[in-house]
Amino acid sequence: MKLAFLGLGAMGQAVAANLLKAGHQVSAWNRTATAGDALAAQGARIAANPADACADADVLFSMFADDPSLRAVLIESGLLATLREPLVHVNLATISVVLADELAALHAATGVAYLSAPVVGRPHVAAAAALQILAAGPAAALDRVQPLLDVIGKKTWRLGDRASQANVMKLAVNFMLVSAIETMGEAAALVDAHGVSPSTLIELVSSSIFPGPVYQGYGSNIAEQRYEPAGFKARLGLKDVRLILAAAESESVPLPIASLVRDSLLDALAHGDGDKDWSVLAQGALRRAGRVPG
Amino acid sequence: MKLAFLGLGAMGQAVAANLLKAGHQVSAWNRTATAGDALAAQGARIAANPADACADADVLFSMFADDPSLRAVLIESGLLATLREPLVHVNLATISVVLADELAALHAATGVAYLSAPVVGRPHVAAAAALQILAAGPAAALDRVQPLLDVIGKKTWRLGDRASQANVMKLAVNFMLVSAIETMGEAAALVDAHGVSPSTLIELVSSSIFPGPVYQGYGSNIAEQRYEPAGFKARLGLKDVRLILAAAESESVPLPIASLVRDSLLDALAHGDGDKDWSVLAQGALRRAGRVPG
Amino acid sequence: MKLAFLGLGAMGQAVAANLLKAGHQVSAWNRTATAGDALAAQGARIAANPADACADADVLFSMFADDPSLRAVLIESGLLATLREPLVHVNLATISVVLADELAALHAATGVAYLSAPVVGRPHVAAAAALQILAAGPAAALDRVQPLLDVIGKKTWRLGDRASQANVMKLAVNFMLVSAIETMGEAAALVDAHGVSPSTLIELVSSSIFPGPVYQGYGSNIAEQRYEPAGFKARLGLKDVRLILAAAESESVPLPIASLVRDSLLDALAHGDGDKDWSVLAQGALRRAGRVPG
Amino acid sequence: MKLAFLGLGAMGQAVAANLLKAGHQVSAWNRTATAGDALAAQGARIAANPADACADADVLFSMFADDPSLRAVLIESGLLATLREPLVHVNLATISVVLADELAALHAATGVAYLSAPVVGRPHVAAAAALQILAAGPAAALDRVQPLLDVIGKKTWRLGDRASQANVMKLAVNFMLVSAIETMGEAAALVDAHGVSPSTLIELVSSSIFPGPVYQGYGSNIAEQRYEPAGFKARLGLKDVRLILAAAESESVPLPIASLVRDSLLDALAHGDGDKDWSVLAQGALRRAGRVPG
Repeated sequence: MKLAFLGLGAMGQAVAANLLKAGHQVSAWNRTATAGDALAAQGARIAANPADACADADVLFSMFADDPSLRAVLIESGLLATLREPLVHVNLATISVVLADELAALHAATGVAYLSAPVVGRPHVAAAAALQILAAGPAAALDRVQPLLDVIGKKTWRLGDRASQANVMKLAVNFMLVSAIETMGEAAALVDAHGVSPSTLIELVSSSIFPGPVYQGYGSNIAEQRYEPAGFKARLGLKDVRLILAAAESESVPLPIASLVRDSLLDALAHGDGDKDWSVLAQGALRRAGRVPG
Repeated sequence: MKLAFLGLGAMGQAVAANLLKAGHQVSAWNRTATAGDALAAQGARIAANPADACADADVLFSMFADDPSLRAVLIESGLLATLREPLVHVNLATISVVLADELAALHAATGVAYLSAPVVGRPHVAAAAALQILAAGPAAALDRVQPLLDVIGKKTWRLGDRASQANVMKLAVNFMLVSAIETMGEAAALVDAHGVSPSTLIELVSSSIFPGPVYQGYGSNIAEQRYEPAGFKARLGLKDVRLILAAAESESVPLPIASLVRDSLLDALAHGDGDKDWSVLAQGALRRAGRVPG
Repeated sequence: MKLAFLGLGAMGQAVAANLLKAGHQVSAWNRTATAGDALAAQGARIAANPADACADADVLFSMFADDPSLRAVLIESGLLATLREPLVHVNLATISVVLADELAALHAATGVAYLSAPVVGRPHVAAAAALQILAAGPAAALDRVQPLLDVIGKKTWRLGDRASQANVMKLAVNFMLVSAIETMGEAAALVDAHGVSPSTLIELVSSSIFPGPVYQGYGSNIAEQRYEPAGFKARLGLKDVRLILAAAESESVPLPIASLVRDSLLDALAHGDGDKDWSVLAQGALRRAGRVPG
Repeated sequence: MKLAFLGLGAMGQAVAANLLKAGHQVSAWNRTATAGDALAAQGARIAANPADACADADVLFSMFADDPSLRAVLIESGLLATLREPLVHVNLATISVVLADELAALHAATGVAYLSAPVVGRPHVAAAAALQILAAGPAAALDRVQPLLDVIGKKTWRLGDRASQANVMKLAVNFMLVSAIETMGEAAALVDAHGVSPSTLIELVSSSIFPGPVYQGYGSNIAEQRYEPAGFKARLGLKDVRLILAAAESESVPLPIASLVRDSLLDALAHGDGDKDWSVLAQGALRRAGRVPG
C-alpha cells in the first residue's frame, strides 16, 4: 500500500521502518528534515511537505509529540480540508481526548476515516514490532488498516467506535505508569531512611510481585539515581498528566493520585529536573524527606 | 530440628506444613485450638499453651495477625523472659518497626537471637514454598535457620543486622501494593466514565507492561467488581497503612501516596466495606466519580 | 467622565451603579440586554453593541464571567483593534494570568493602556462601594483612573506594573477562600462523627479566632447544610481552581491544597451539585465519611 | 475554693495566676519546680508532688503538654486511684480523644467527676482571661466549676456530656488553624513566583476577608519569613495533627487536608525545622516551588 507518515521522532522512525520492511511504499515527512535520513536509506521517500506526503496515499499515519504540533500540521495548515476518501488517517500519538473528538468530527465532515491508535511501548519495543496498539474509531476503517497494524505491533486492542476512547485508554495506562514511578520513589525514601538500600527494594519487587518493564526499567533508574539520558522527560510527563487530568475533569472524575503526581512533577521542574527522565520523581521524594540535598 | 510454631492463620498453617514435610518436629499452638487440626493430621504436636510449645525447641517461629496479639502472647504473658539460648526466634509476621526494635532489645537481654523474617506471598504461595522471605537480624542466627527458611520460601533476602529493617522492607512492599490497587481503581473510574470497560484496561496492562500477581489478581477483582470473599480485608489494609505511615514518620519521611490511600481506606470503612477485600478501594474511586451509587 | 461598561452581571451592575451615582456618564452593554434595565433606570445609556458602548469613552470597564466571554467580545470580535489612545481599559474580572498577559501585549500594540483590577467582595459589598480592588498595570494609567476606583471600592492595592500580577493576587485570594471552605467541611465531618454539631463549631470559630465574612458566610451554609441559592456556584469554583492551578503551573509551583480541592469539586459535580454554592464541598466531606447518603 | 493546679507551662501559669487573682487558694505543682517561682510570688503554694497538691482540693486543674505526661502523673503514678468525691477534675490540655474517654471511665470508677476543658487562645490571651473554653462532661460538675471557668476565660462552650467531645472540638479548631497556615504558605509561593510580595497578600487578606489573629499572627511570620522564636513548634504541631487524624480515624472520617498537612510537617522536620514555629510550613511550600534553597 501507499502510506504517508508524518512525524519522525524515535517512535515514528521505528514504526515507519517496519512498514517499509513489510514492503509498503512510505512517503515520510518531518518538521526537521534530517530526522528522515535513516528512513530514506531504508527506502522511504522523503516528502517536501505534509501535503506532498499525503498525495496518492491510501493510509496516513501521524505521530507528533503533542497536540499543538498535530494541530498545526493537520488543521491550521489547511491539510485536513484537502484530504479525500478513501484515505484512512491513523493517528499513533498520545493526544488529548478533546483533540481526538475534534479530529473525529473534522474528518467526518470530509469523509476521511479517522482512527486513534496510540501505542504502548518504547522505541526498542516499536523496533521489535511488539507494540500494544490501542485502537478506536469506525470499525470498517479499522478492518482496512488492520494488516498494517499487525506489521507494527504485537496486538491491537479494539476499544470502541469513538476514536477518543483509545486516547482515554492510553492516558489511563500512562497514569498507572507515572503512579508506579512516584510510588517507587516514596518507597525508596522510606527504606533509605531506615538504612535499607533502595536498590534492594527494587530488585526484590521487580523479581517477585512486580515483574515487567516498568518496575524494572524505571526502578533501575531510581536504584542508581541515574536520570539522564531521559527515556521520557519529566516535562513531557507533566504534559501527559495534564491530558490525564483534563480527560478526567471532562467527565467529573476525581483522580487524586494524578493530582498528587502533578504536584511532584512541578516540584521536579522547580528544581531544574524538567529535562531529566520522569523517574526523577524519586529524587523529589528523597529530597522532601531530607535524604538528598535540595 | 525441634520447632515451635505460634500462630496458625492461613499463612502459618501453610508454612508449618512445609516444615513438617521436611521432616522437622513441630510443636504448634494457636489461640483458637481448632486451627491446629489439619496440622495435627500432618504430624504436628498441638501444644497446650505457648510455653509448652517452646519447651525444648531449637527454633521458635511466630506468625500473629498484628502487634497486639504478638505482644500479648510473647511479652505480656511473661513467655519471652523464660526463653533461653540457643533458641532462635524467627518472627514471620508483618509487625511495626517500633515493635521489632523493642523485640530485638528484649531478646538481646535474654540472649535469645531475634530475627524478623516477614514474607511476601499469599497462602497459596506459602503452600507452594515459594515465598519471598525478607530477613534481618544477627547474621549468625540467620545462618543457623537458613536451611529452615529454604524449606518454606523460594528466596531469602538478607536486609541487615537490625531486625526491623526487614519489617521496613515488608511495609514498603505493602505500600507499593496498595498504591497499585488505588491507582487501578482511579484508572478504572477514568475509562469507565468514557465508556471503556475497566476490564479491558486491566486485561491490557496485566498482559503487557504490568504483568504479575498484583495487577492480575487485584485487577480481576476490580474488573469484576467482586470484593468478597476477601483475600486481605480493607480493615487490615488500613492497619498496614498505619504501620507504613508510622515507620515513615519516625524518620520524618513524607509519603503522600500512603496518606491518600489511608483516606481512601477510611472512605471504604465509612461505607461499610471494611471486611471486603482491600481492592474495594476501586469502588470508592468509582463512587466519588458518581459511577456507582453511594 | 465618559465611561463604557461591558458585562452586567450582579457584580457589574453594582459597580456601574456607583459610577453613575458619582456623576459619570455610563454607556453599558451586556450580551443579554435585559440585564441593563435597572441600570438604564438609574441613568445609564444602553449601547447597541460593545463598539457603540466604547465610542467616545475615556475609560472602558469590563467585567465578564470568564475568559472565553471576554475573549469573544474584546478580541475575536475585532473590537480591541479599533480602540485608540487615550482610552484606558480597566478589566475588573477574575481572568487567567495567561489571558491577562496576552491582553497586556495586545493593548500595548494599540497604545491603549490595559489595567487588570479584579475585586474582592460579593455583590452586596460592591453595592456598598466597599470592594478591595487589586490593581496592576502601567502606573500612569492607574493614576488616571484612581478617582474612579475610589468611587467603587474601599481600597486599591497597587500590585505591580505587569497587569497579570493583579490577577495572580486575586487567584491567591480565591485559593485561600476555597481552602477555608474545604477545611470547614472536613472539620464539620470530624465533629459530626463524634456527636458534636457542626453549627457549634462554626459559631465558635467565627466568633473567635476566625472572624470575618468567609467563615461566617460559608460557615453558616455548612452549619445549615443549605447550598441553594448559590452565592457562587461549584461549577464556577472549579473554573477558578483551574485558573489557580494554571497560574501555579506556569511558574512550577506545586499547590497540593488546590489540587485536593479540585478533586473535591469534581466529586461535587459528579454528584449533581455543580449549580449549588461551592460551600457544598462540605457535603462531599460528610458523604465520604458516610455521614450523609451518597 | 481550694484548687490544685498541675502543669505550669506558659499557658498553665497564666491561667493559675488568674485563679489566684480571683481569691482562690492554689496549690501548684510542676515537674520542673522552677516553673512555679513566679506563681509562688503571686501567692500560690508550691506542692512537693502531685498528691500533695491535690490534698484537700475542691477542684483539680491539669494542663500538661501531651498525653504521656498526663498519663504518667495522673494514672501511672497511682494518683488517680487516690482521688475522692467531691473533687472535680478539669483538664485544660489538648489531649487525644482516646485518652479523654479513658480518663472519663477511670474517673467514673472513683466517683470523681472528670471534665475536658481545652482552651482556644495563646498565653497572652490566657493572661487576659479571654480564652474560649471548650467544655464537656457531666453537667452538674460543669455547673460547679463554671464560676472558676468564668475567671479564666471569656466564654465557656458546653459541648456535651461526653468529656471527649470537647477534645474533638479543640482538635477540629487546631485542624482549621494549621490548614490556614499551610494554605497561606502555598498562596505565598504562588504570588512570590509571579513577582508579587507575599507580605502584600497577607496584608490584603488579613485586613479584609480574613481578619483575626490566625491570618494576622501566623501571616506576619510568613510575610517576614521569621519562624523563631516559636509560638508553637512544628514538632508539637505534628503531634496535634496526629491526634486529629486519630480522632478522625476512630470514626472512619477521611481528612485529606490533615493528611496533606502531616506530610508538610514531616517535610519541615526532615529539613531541621521541628523546633521552629509551625508557620514554617510556608517555608516548605516555597522550597518545593524552588523559591528558597533546600
